[in-house]
Parts: sequence; C-alpha cells; structure tokens
Amino acid sequence: MWKLPKQIEQLNQESIEQARMRHDQLTKPPGSLGMLEEIGIRLAGIQGATIPTAEPAAVVVMAGDHGVTEEGVSAFPSEVTVQMVLNFMAGGAAINVLARNAGADVHVVDIGVKADIPLEQVQAGNSGNRLWIEKVRYGTGNMAKEPAMTRDEAEQALSVGWKIGRELSVQGYKVIALGEMGIGNTTASAAIASVLTGKPVPEVVGAGTGLSTEGIRHKSEVIERAIATNAPDPQDPVDVLAKVGGLEIAGLTGLTLACAAHRVAVVVDGFIASAAAIAAVRIEPAVQPYLFASHKSVEPGHRILLEALDLQPLFDFSMRLGEGSGASLALPVLQGAARVLKEMATFAEAGVSDGVS
Amino acid sequence: MWKLPKQIEQLNQESIEQARMRHDQLTKPPGSLGMLEEIGIRLAGIQGATIPTAEPAAVVVMAGDHGVTEEGVSAFPSEVTVQMVLNFMAGGAAINVLARNAGADVHVVDIGVKADIPLEQVQAGNSGNRLWIEKVRYGTGNMAKEPAMTRDEAEQALSVGWKIGRELSVQGYKVIALGEMGIGNTTASAAIASVLTGKPVPEVVGAGTGLSTEGIRHKSEVIERAIATNAPDPQDPVDVLAKVGGLEIAGLTGLTLACAAHRVAVVVDGFIASAAAIAAVRIEPAVQPYLFASHKSVEPGHRILLEALDLQPLFDFSMRLGEGSGASLALPVLQGAARVLKEMATFAEAGVSDGVS
Repeated sequence: MWKLPKQIEQLNQESIEQARMRHDQLTKPPGSLGMLEEIGIRLAGIQGATIPTAEPAAVVVMAGDHGVTEEGVSAFPSEVTVQMVLNFMAGGAAINVLARNAGADVHVVDIGVKADIPLEQVQAGNSGNRLWIEKVRYGTGNMAKEPAMTRDEAEQALSVGWKIGRELSVQGYKVIALGEMGIGNTTASAAIASVLTGKPVPEVVGAGTGLSTEGIRHKSEVIERAIATNAPDPQDPVDVLAKVGGLEIAGLTGLTLACAAHRVAVVVDGFIASAAAIAAVRIEPAVQPYLFASHKSVEPGHRILLEALDLQPLFDFSMRLGEGSGASLALPVLQGAARVLKEMATFAEAGVSDGVS
Repeated sequence: MWKLPKQIEQLNQESIEQARMRHDQLTKPPGSLGMLEEIGIRLAGIQGATIPTAEPAAVVVMAGDHGVTEEGVSAFPSEVTVQMVLNFMAGGAAINVLARNAGADVHVVDIGVKADIPLEQVQAGNSGNRLWIEKVRYGTGNMAKEPAMTRDEAEQALSVGWKIGRELSVQGYKVIALGEMGIGNTTASAAIASVLTGKPVPEVVGAGTGLSTEGIRHKSEVIERAIATNAPDPQDPVDVLAKVGGLEIAGLTGLTLACAAHRVAVVVDGFIASAAAIAAVRIEPAVQPYLFASHKSVEPGHRILLEALDLQPLFDFSMRLGEGSGASLALPVLQGAARVLKEMATFAEAGVSDGVS
C-alpha cells in the first residue's frame, strides 16, 4: 500500500471550542447562522486558529484521458480533453468564470492527457492560470480489456497529487477545490464507486456529459466487464484506482491527502471528485473532517458517494459539468463563514443587548 | 387599494430565447450547469439583455419596531432594533460581513424604529453604509389590541419602499436583496402568512430569535388574538399589512414592487422578507418572475410562503437570522450565473468539439 509521506492529524479541538464560544458572543441570536457557523467552526479546527480564513483559495483541475472511451461510453470524443485544457488556460471555461467569481486561482494539471499540450498555444492565450505538466502516462488503458494503469503508475499519480498539495499549502492557500477534466471519467468514477461502496453498477451509473438511456445501459455493461476482467480488491483502494480508475482521479486522491496533512481544507466537487475523495478516505480515514461537500450533482452515484463520505452537500443545482464548477460556487460560502468569525462585532463591542444579561 | 405608480411588465421573451441559445453554444454539455443556467436566463429576461449582469447589488435592510412585543413574543427587547441599526451602520453585523463578501452595498432604512436613530453615533462610526431616515411612525401599535397601523400609514410605508426601489434602480443597481430588522417581526410575518395563505396560525409560527416551546405556544395565541381583533381581509393585502403587518414589512413590499417595475431582480431572504414578497405578489402577480428565493430558513412558515410564492430556494443552511443574511449568500450565485453567460467561450471561439458537429 502507498504510504502517506506525512501523517494527517485530528482537528484542533481547542480551536473548535474557542470558535464556538466566539460565535455565541457575536451580535446575533446564538446558532442563528446555522450551517454557516458550523463551517466556520470546522475551518477553525482545521487551521488550529480561533479565527480562520478561507482565502486565498485555488481550484486544481486535473486532466487525464481514459482508454475506455474506445467502448463508446461518452457523448464527447477524447480530443476534447486537450481542447478543454487549452480553454482552461485561456480562461474561457466555466471553471475559469466561477473561480474568478469566487476570487480563486486556477491550477491546471496534465497528469495523463493522451496528447501533448501544445505549449505555444498555451503561451499565446494564457490568461494567468498555472499549468503543471506532470504526465504519468498518455491516458489510461481500456479497463474493459486490461487494467487502466499499473500499480506503480497509480502510485506515481498519487505522488503527483501529493506534491502539488504540499506545494500549494506552502504557497499559502487555505482552501483547495477539486476539479477535473477527462472524457470518460464518469465511467471510471462509477467503477470506483461500485467497488468501494459495494453498490451494484447500475445504481451508480448516469448520463455523464449526455448519454441516452441506451448509452447508459451500455456504459453499465462496460463497467461490469471492467470489474470482472480486473477484479479490483475493495480492501485496497490503490488497487481500485489502478485497475478501474483514472490518472486525474488518483491525482486528486493524492492532492486531497496532502491538503489534509498540511491542514488545508478541501472542497469536493461532483461525482468524479467524490470518487477521488472516497479513495482518500479509504486510504486514511483521518482525512474526512478536512472535506467539505459543495453540491449534489445529477449523477445518481454521487448521492451514494456523499453518503459514504458522510458529507452534507451545500446545494443541489442539478449540475453535471465537473471541472470544479460546483466546488467553486461553494467557495464564497466558506469565505463568508470565515469572515463572519473575523469581522462581526461582539455584543459587548457593539453595545447590543444579548437578550440574556 | 394602493396603486402602483408604474406597471410591471412581463419578462422579455426574446432575451430569454437568445440567452438560452447562447448557453447551448458555450463550452460545456448543454444544460450541464443546471439551475445556474436557468438563473442566468431569467436575469436576461428581467433585464431585456442576452448577456445580463448581477452587479452592482445592494442589500436593503428596513428596520421597524412592533408594538406586539408588549405581549412577550420575542427573546430580545425592542431596544435591540435601534442598537442593531447602529451596528449595521458601523459595519459589525452579519449582514455587513456577508454583503462585503458578495461585493454588495448595504442600505439601512429607518422606516419605523421606536426611537430616533442617534445620528452623531452613526456619523462617528459609519463604515460607508447608506442610512435612509424615512420614519412613517415610531413603531407599530400592539396588534393584539388594535391595528398595527392605519391604512394610510401602510400606504406611506409602501410608498417609501417604492421610492427607494426606484432611486436604487436609477443608481444602477441590478440586484436588490431584501433585508430587515425588527424585534417582534416574525410575529407579524406569521400573522401575514396565516391570513394570506389561509394556513392555521400554529403551522406558520416558529421560535423566531430563540423562543422556548412554551414561548412559541404563547406567540400563536397572541397572533390568533390579533387576527380575531382586527379581522384583516385576505383579499386586500394592504389591509393585511396595515392590521397585522409591520412598517419594515410593508416597506419591503413597496421596494419589491418598484424593483420589478424598473426591471431590477429581487433576492428574497427568509421568513419576514417572504411575508413582504407574498404581499407584493398579491398586490400585483406580475412581480413573481422578478423574484429569486435564496434559502429556506428554519421558521416553519417559511416553507409555506415559498410554496405560495412558487419559488425554489437555492440552499437550506438552517439559518434564522434575517437581516438579508441568506439573500447575501445567494448573490455570488446570481453573479456567477450572469458571468457565465458573459465570460465563457463558445465552442467555436475555443476550438472545442461540441460532440455534435
């Protein structure tokens, strides 16, 4: 089993208590900000500070291709992965807009795109986003016929994610949102979800970027074949990531673990990011309290993963885009939760009667 | 019946169609941003522009006192209303923090606070918020014994709200969030909700800022007495606002109507703002498509009002503060929805395959 380079500690209980006490002194009825108070208090525990901060934040979009697209499991061709990486770098994708809207930076990672990223095109159009070239291999193998990748490659992808998480923590980011791009990656995520939660494949398979009912049925069959062919061990999450996962998914798993180990909060996006997160929790359960769920997507497997992660999504906007789009919409909520603890006046400071004394 | 100074027009169907067509050309699977797309498209219809904007935005916090607090229906004394107005002006309340977090301005309106606002204190501590002194009277009468206000006063309050809405539209605001402060105003809101929806009082009464079970039972009895004493006419929303409403509630009703008449989107906050909104819809049903619900509060009557308004809340954070706190958290969602239409690249612009052609 891949070993964590650094242990993940428990949340700081003293900071949690102090943040809770501070909340009760702020000029509002105690508890009246509901989940916003709980988010701020958990951020305090993550950061070991009574007054936490959710800024700066970054969205890390890991990109990789999937050999299983040979089986016709996606409405879009594989070429779209590299085209979208260029779009991310030029600032024209949904994630760029929603990250800007939240004041967050965008980091794009080529961890397994099938083609080389044309760097001259990136340079010509770059709108200030960071590109990491960390390719482990040129797309995965077709898991319907062979393992998506070797165990060694899966561990390399975990290490890439870990390295990026550690470096972003050093750069001072307080919150990392998980994003991804990879044509075919709801297929890999459904396979991971089925193996790690024990749910039958048809319960975790959905339309992805836009399949028909017939397409969804076919996708289920391909996933069942992939699981039967590779026999991933549900007790060994790295084996599952290697055999039926994806390079960008394993990378997000490593990133999630590194963020928690460095006391950085992680905002999980939709179905694919949740598949990466469940693998992280199975590798090291101590990562769970560092995670925030953003939204509930329309992928049916997402609800199952949120339950397995024991996370409550903040909203349900019927989204199914990925890229970190849902997680980006959650960032202003985390920022608001932290700023309330920092910027609100206490009853004593404001000369407001607290209704008790 | 109070008459609208200016008619409310229907949404612009051509802008709605054009925004919908544009969404299908942006670099994402069609419909994959779910409710975010619908919000952007509705903003387009409100503004009569294919590419709408949700900036600048303001939270308008109307403040008024309630004579019914004599009956012991709140966990906080009436004095807190003026103390909180000072806190709003000094920038230390939750709404200040959450408005800043959303990049929105705060406008505070004294439309019926029981005391005069000590202006020298405001001046000494002002953190850049706008104060409107538009006092219609010094708090309402005790509705358990007499009408909360006369019909003339209710119409004055509607006119104050209308005037502010019109002026803010001239100042260029594109989105207005409804906020309020008034010790006792969940009692008035529950009375309005019961009369205008026909639901029994106990179904719409909750803990407000923090009542016990016994306190909630007493609050129900007081409201039932108020309705029996005043016999508000459910077919005449201005009569309802006058007899069992509040000055800040009637003000928000006028504000809502003026925003719609000037094609400004309105974000409804929790229970009290929703009581103002239902009165606006009963005065002029054409206001409804200009409204966005932000959150579902823990007040049991809020769910009933959201259903009556036919609005879907964006999130459910178990909040019960008021002030516009929930509406402020929704502003970044509206801003993101508008920016997606403006800033995302089309498939053609980005050179991304759309999976069809």
